[in-house]
Amino acid sequence: MRIVGTRRDGGSVEVAALSADGAQVTLIAPLEEFWAAAAGHLSREPAGETLPAEGVELVPPVLPGARVVCIGLNYLRHVAEGSFRDQDIPAYPTLFARWTASLTVGGAEVPVPADEDGLDWEGEVVAYVGRTLVDATPDEALAAVVGYSTFNDLTSRRAQKLTSQWILGKNGDRSGPLGPMVPAGEVGDLRDGLRVQTRVNGETVQDGRTDEMVYTVGDTLSLISRTFTLRPGDLLATGTPSGVGYARTPPWLLQPGDVVEVEVERLGVLRNPVVGNDLRLKEA
Amino acid sequence: MRIVGTRRDGGSVEVAALSADGAQVTLIAPLEEFWAAAAGHLSREPAGETLPAEGVELVPPVLPGARVVCIGLNYLRHVAEGSFRDQDIPAYPTLFARWTASLTVGGAEVPVPADEDGLDWEGEVVAYVGRTLVDATPDEALAAVVGYSTFNDLTSRRAQKLTSQWILGKNGDRSGPLGPMVPAGEVGDLRDGLRVQTRVNGETVQDGRTDEMVYTVGDTLSLISRTFTLRPGDLLATGTPSGVGYARTPPWLLQPGDVVEVEVERLGVLRNPVVGNDLRLKEA
Repeated sequence: MRIVGTRRDGGSVEVAALSADGAQVTLIAPLEEFWAAAAGHLSREPAGETLPAEGVELVPPVLPGARVVCIGLNYLRHVAEGSFRDQDIPAYPTLFARWTASLTVGGAEVPVPADEDGLDWEGEVVAYVGRTLVDATPDEALAAVVGYSTFNDLTSRRAQKLTSQWILGKNGDRSGPLGPMVPAGEVGDLRDGLRVQTRVNGETVQDGRTDEMVYTVGDTLSLISRTFTLRPGDLLATGTPSGVGYARTPPWLLQPGDVVEVEVERLGVLRNPVVGNDLRLKEA
Repeated sequence: MRIVGTRRDGGSVEVAALSADGAQVTLIAPLEEFWAAAAGHLSREPAGETLPAEGVELVPPVLPGARVVCIGLNYLRHVAEGSFRDQDIPAYPTLFARWTASLTVGGAEVPVPADEDGLDWEGEVVAYVGRTLVDATPDEALAAVVGYSTFNDLTSRRAQKLTSQWILGKNGDRSGPLGPMVPAGEVGDLRDGLRVQTRVNGETVQDGRTDEMVYTVGDTLSLISRTFTLRPGDLLATGTPSGVGYARTPPWLLQPGDVVEVEVERLGVLRNPVVGNDLRLKEA
């Protein structure tokens, strides 16, 4: 099952299941109702209205107030290629923040902000929290994950590196495309090693496996829950494998006209075209 | 005028004006309608229903999807006292993120997470963005600010310092109390120097002025808008003066039973009691 957010005529967001061919959506529940009982909804066949997908707007199935917690350095070979390569592996996951305002879906055009030389790719897997977690053990935290999706943590490197803190460059407009959520039961455990690939205009630029992660989903959610209470609908982006663009010689960044794809085993392909900064001015 | 969020019987949030004595609220508009035309609403006398304040729940007048962008190092004497004292003043404002889920109001009990030795205080001023800003000039950005409020950026220092990125320790449950928003026209320009004081159990621990800021509100919002489009309802926390607790010898952190107050000239007093981690477990 592939879970998406849908909007009809600019109305409020409803959560739906996308058909195997992508042609239809079957409604499950309004967004807040879905997250109030996500595991229950995912355990049943969707029973709502079925509509042609082309008649609805697809959006992330994400609450506006959800937290998108991102692990910055989680694949050893990615740590080794970047700015932190001369430092010890941190003892804890390096966590940074995205706001939901930066999220979008596959197919959406992603603009390169005016001051950037391009956008960098970071293919990832996102985990969705389905239950409240406070001071949870790693096992409790992992058991609370109700689904996973592909994610591209598209990064404005100049903005990211202006100071010690990364969040400006991690929250560009539409810079966080999310694929449909696949229920956790259909995905299994990321520690089994799902292949994560990123392609630029068809050329493979990242090719890793989720069993390379230093910090597991359970451990990381457990750690977070000891400072703030995780709520249903919160997201954890689990970090990217090696192969990002800025660390290459010469650097390689996405330009308007490029198409970037993230493919994760069992989760599908997430494809986004890159456009110029004009889009930002046009939409304002 | 003091602008607050109100909720009746657990319903949706409405924006209201608090009377001078704090005994009554006069409704202005539902939360989303307010932010769709904030400057207009603030230019008129509130014309909605007037209710006893004790009959409504006060909440931040903040959209769930709003971004709370925070400046980390903005008062020179605060930079000089902390972990970054041996580094050059950054050429750009150091920006970190809070999610709205961490926000609360004056009077709310703020828990110390289990792994922390206490909470640190950071008295601040927050600016509220009232218009969409994309690639804005500093003047345009400053003109888009519709109000200001007191803020306490209560910090879990151990979580903040676990890795290079601060956001875990900046998003503890209820760790971001906001005072009522005062319209920008009644506040004037922060560059004129509003006094910012923090008190712990009545003892003054921070005493600065907003004209000490290195990065102005206009410059900072302008910079942000070149990477992501600011939307009505987004917030900028402008940083804290010197005098935080962790930088003292010996360190001094807030303990359950303490009361912390932030007072900003023209914006009022924001007072919060600190409690133990039990509150987090009780509320989960």
